[in-house]
Amino acid sequence: MTTTTTTAEDLFPTRLPTPTDFITRSQPAVWGSEGDGPFTASELEAHDRRGYTVLDDFITSDDVALYSGELDRLAADPALKDDPRMIAERTTGTVRSVFEIEKLSSVLEALARDPKVLDRARQIVGSEVYLHQTRINYMPSFTGTGFYWHSDFETWHAEDGMPVPRAVSLSIALTDNYPFNGGLMVMPGSHRTFVPAVGETPDNNHEQSLQAQEAGVPSHVAITAMADEYGIDQFTGAAGSALWFDSNIMHGSGNNITPYARSNVFMVFNSVDNALVDPFAAKSPRPGHIANRDFTPLG
Amino acid sequence: MTTTTTTAEDLFPTRLPTPTDFITRSQPAVWGSEGDGPFTASELEAHDRRGYTVLDDFITSDDVALYSGELDRLAADPALKDDPRMIAERTTGTVRSVFEIEKLSSVLEALARDPKVLDRARQIVGSEVYLHQTRINYMPSFTGTGFYWHSDFETWHAEDGMPVPRAVSLSIALTDNYPFNGGLMVMPGSHRTFVPAVGETPDNNHEQSLQAQEAGVPSHVAITAMADEYGIDQFTGAAGSALWFDSNIMHGSGNNITPYARSNVFMVFNSVDNALVDPFAAKSPRPGHIANRDFTPLG
Repeated sequence: MTTTTTTAEDLFPTRLPTPTDFITRSQPAVWGSEGDGPFTASELEAHDRRGYTVLDDFITSDDVALYSGELDRLAADPALKDDPRMIAERTTGTVRSVFEIEKLSSVLEALARDPKVLDRARQIVGSEVYLHQTRINYMPSFTGTGFYWHSDFETWHAEDGMPVPRAVSLSIALTDNYPFNGGLMVMPGSHRTFVPAVGETPDNNHEQSLQAQEAGVPSHVAITAMADEYGIDQFTGAAGSALWFDSNIMHGSGNNITPYARSNVFMVFNSVDNALVDPFAAKSPRPGHIANRDFTPLG
Repeated sequence: MTTTTTTAEDLFPTRLPTPTDFITRSQPAVWGSEGDGPFTASELEAHDRRGYTVLDDFITSDDVALYSGELDRLAADPALKDDPRMIAERTTGTVRSVFEIEKLSSVLEALARDPKVLDRARQIVGSEVYLHQTRINYMPSFTGTGFYWHSDFETWHAEDGMPVPRAVSLSIALTDNYPFNGGLMVMPGSHRTFVPAVGETPDNNHEQSLQAQEAGVPSHVAITAMADEYGIDQFTGAAGSALWFDSNIMHGSGNNITPYARSNVFMVFNSVDNALVDPFAAKSPRPGHIANRDFTPLG
């Protein structure tokens, strides 16, 4: 395993004592081109512009059943009951997320290396990649709670030491996503704009932030400005559809009072040329199962 | 004012100690016909089948501004601060609803008597009508909380003594309703089925039920069965659009984390032939500003 105590110039200052201007990033969302992988030139152009791409029927219904079975198996595994990789709903205690799934499931480890996944991740970030974070998310029916608006990159930069937004996330739906069962909302184009957060990072913030965020949350003024500028899209689609999205896109989700639970596989591919350094706005890095520091390329 | 201590046969037993079978109602949703008012025969047929009707551009943008001004005026009126007709959000204390608006605003009183409103209400219930309940609802941006699944008629029957579902509700949007800002979800066709609730009504239930329901809430099993049978539609539409819906349709709403607040005017028209009797499943009737017992026909 490679570890690091490197420091780097902070291009995205955040967790500041007072509000500061938004930062327009200079890094593209797409670093590769059509010849580098399965995405077409127009798909890449749209991804660079909107910050996300939806691919219907990305996996087969057999694979949906296979991965759902892995979710059920992991959620029920007594050996994982007190494992830090298991995150429970704050109110009900049911499983909300399981982290580091590539180490808990050979089936999901193989998914990360599947060419339809890996080649697209490499194409978007324009280099070899490694897994920065992986998880299965489960939002229950009736009582599912959402996640407030945020940029993943803001947290990964502040708390994990990710230098720049050169990472792409993949969310594969294992259940149907309707407009009304707590699916992801994204602000198309917002990935171009970094919204510095106000307020210092508490020690061991990750111990509660995976259930409900408090640090790194954009202000109402910032969210209003971003929504007025970019609007809001919803990720809807049948089980098996995939959402590829930029690490800095502003996104969130509402709650779910419907009888339709939601679950998905989530994998973050970071460029090996963007490996983590020391956190930019936290005293110590988060644990490896949340922010992987083994930068060995996937292959 | 007409008051009553009448009792009547209970066709819709609810708030029971144990789960019971759903009841298929014998009353239609539409009692009038094309010749009785503005709705066409096909609109009436669709309303009877689905239990709701959306009319875009029901009021003008000038009227949207006029009624929104009334909402702002009432919410800010210091004389109403401790008035029981003002209901605050449980968590934030901001105004959630103002009841009995026809007595607080001559502008809104005139709206209830506007022929485009009153003639449609009479046409649907097939008789003269009176106002059973009126309110302005306000769901704030960012922190708006929804309402869990319920049938209004279940509450009006149990707690107010409404004999049968011969009432129609009108909700006029004063803000744009997106699929993602906590708008109403309805189960089309569900109005045909009465879902008895389990559990006795607490004394003075209305003192908390207007903020968050606990009594009269359908079970997860019941909601799942209803959603599987009827599906879920969302009421979306620009400010000025109207939703007419049956008193017994199963509906609910999620929360709202977007910057887009939602507000609407809500009026319930009950048939004068369906006037309230003693509550069917509560010790005493709710106050008049929640369940009006003046059955004088609107005209």
